[in-house]
Amino acid sequence: MASVQLSRMEALGCTGCTHACHVMLYCDTETQLFGKIPIRHIILMQMRFDGLLGFPGGLVNLSEETLEAGLSRELWEELGVALPIAVEDHVDSCHAPASSPSSSSPLITNFYVKKMEEEQIREVEIAAASTATDHGQEVLGMVRVPLCTTKGLASFLSHSFIGNARSQLVNSLLRFNLIAPEELHKALTHSLKIHTHTAEDLRAALALTEAKRKRL
Amino acid sequence: MASVQLSRMEALGCTGCTHACHVMLYCDTETQLFGKIPIRHIILMQMRFDGLLGFPGGLVNLSEETLEAGLSRELWEELGVALPIAVEDHVDSCHAPASSPSSSSPLITNFYVKKMEEEQIREVEIAAASTATDHGQEVLGMVRVPLCTTKGLASFLSHSFIGNARSQLVNSLLRFNLIAPEELHKALTHSLKIHTHTAEDLRAALALTEAKRKRL
Repeated sequence: MASVQLSRMEALGCTGCTHACHVMLYCDTETQLFGKIPIRHIILMQMRFDGLLGFPGGLVNLSEETLEAGLSRELWEELGVALPIAVEDHVDSCHAPASSPSSSSPLITNFYVKKMEEEQIREVEIAAASTATDHGQEVLGMVRVPLCTTKGLASFLSHSFIGNARSQLVNSLLRFNLIAPEELHKALTHSLKIHTHTAEDLRAALALTEAKRKRL
Repeated sequence: MASVQLSRMEALGCTGCTHACHVMLYCDTETQLFGKIPIRHIILMQMRFDGLLGFPGGLVNLSEETLEAGLSRELWEELGVALPIAVEDHVDSCHAPASSPSSSSPLITNFYVKKMEEEQIREVEIAAASTATDHGQEVLGMVRVPLCTTKGLASFLSHSFIGNARSQLVNSLLRFNLIAPEELHKALTHSLKIHTHTAEDLRAALALTEAKRKRL
């Protein structure tokens, strides 16, 4: 977690690194939940084939494409829409902690944020579920981040995320003023409680399954 | 978790209870992940407005509709498709643990499972992201349950679920032979490890946010 932030140039300077690029697509919205709670912003994340939540994107091959072109290619596959990503959309890069001893080269995750119109976000969601080639393959579904209640955000943050996706989300919420720091702090604190509750629930499910196995 | 299973008739016998109905929609599939790993089955769940994962459905008003008609109504709102649910699709019902002292009447959750064709599941996903009135409101996105690798299912099961949705999923996987009991057991065991890792990650995110607040 205590990862060193790199600029885009510093990241590119790492020869022999594998590069992954991901993007947070978001928009402002006037919509209200139940006609009364302002939703304020829509942020897109996705359920990945590995069961974890993350941002759209993937591995980029720098010998064949730029970081941004590679990210656009991944978005085309995952979301089914042509989304140009600019150098200006880059937010930060960082070294990913070594995930396994067998990893051949160190991984750098490059993170981008792109603000869109609400109509464009809706188009992305529809294309992702209909025409995207990765639908049902690498991507199991797009989800919006619940921002309009502290409890909703707390529950969302208690899920399991790939790599540093949760930090990327939390940092972006602050950096782009999508949530008040106090509110985010409350959400994260509550998130830990929900998380502890999930552990009990999970252990109960495991015990139930064990009991059933014995009966088989 | 140690909830008493009720038949549909027993559930209906509870006068003064509030009733919720949810359904697991699923299909078989020949599709392979990365062209080599059999996906076997597609199961639909959803990200709810409260940040938790659950099955489509909701509260049913027995003074105005049957359990099944109420569930169909909810599916129309959430998924944007007309899906008749039959009494025969009922799997089980159970008393939900009292969620808060302010709950006026005890809640019974009625669970249904409906097998569909893959093409129908795809139609549901598209309608849910395009025409469903609850999209972006009560529903933040539909997701498929990753079944084709133990690790993927393990990660998925480590998320946070509403009420007894995780048990409903786990029980249905066994009941409808969608996974081998040994594999499910492995997934749940691994799920607890992933869950523990998430706790560390979450605490680090909280610490980071606290550090940032102090700097503000």
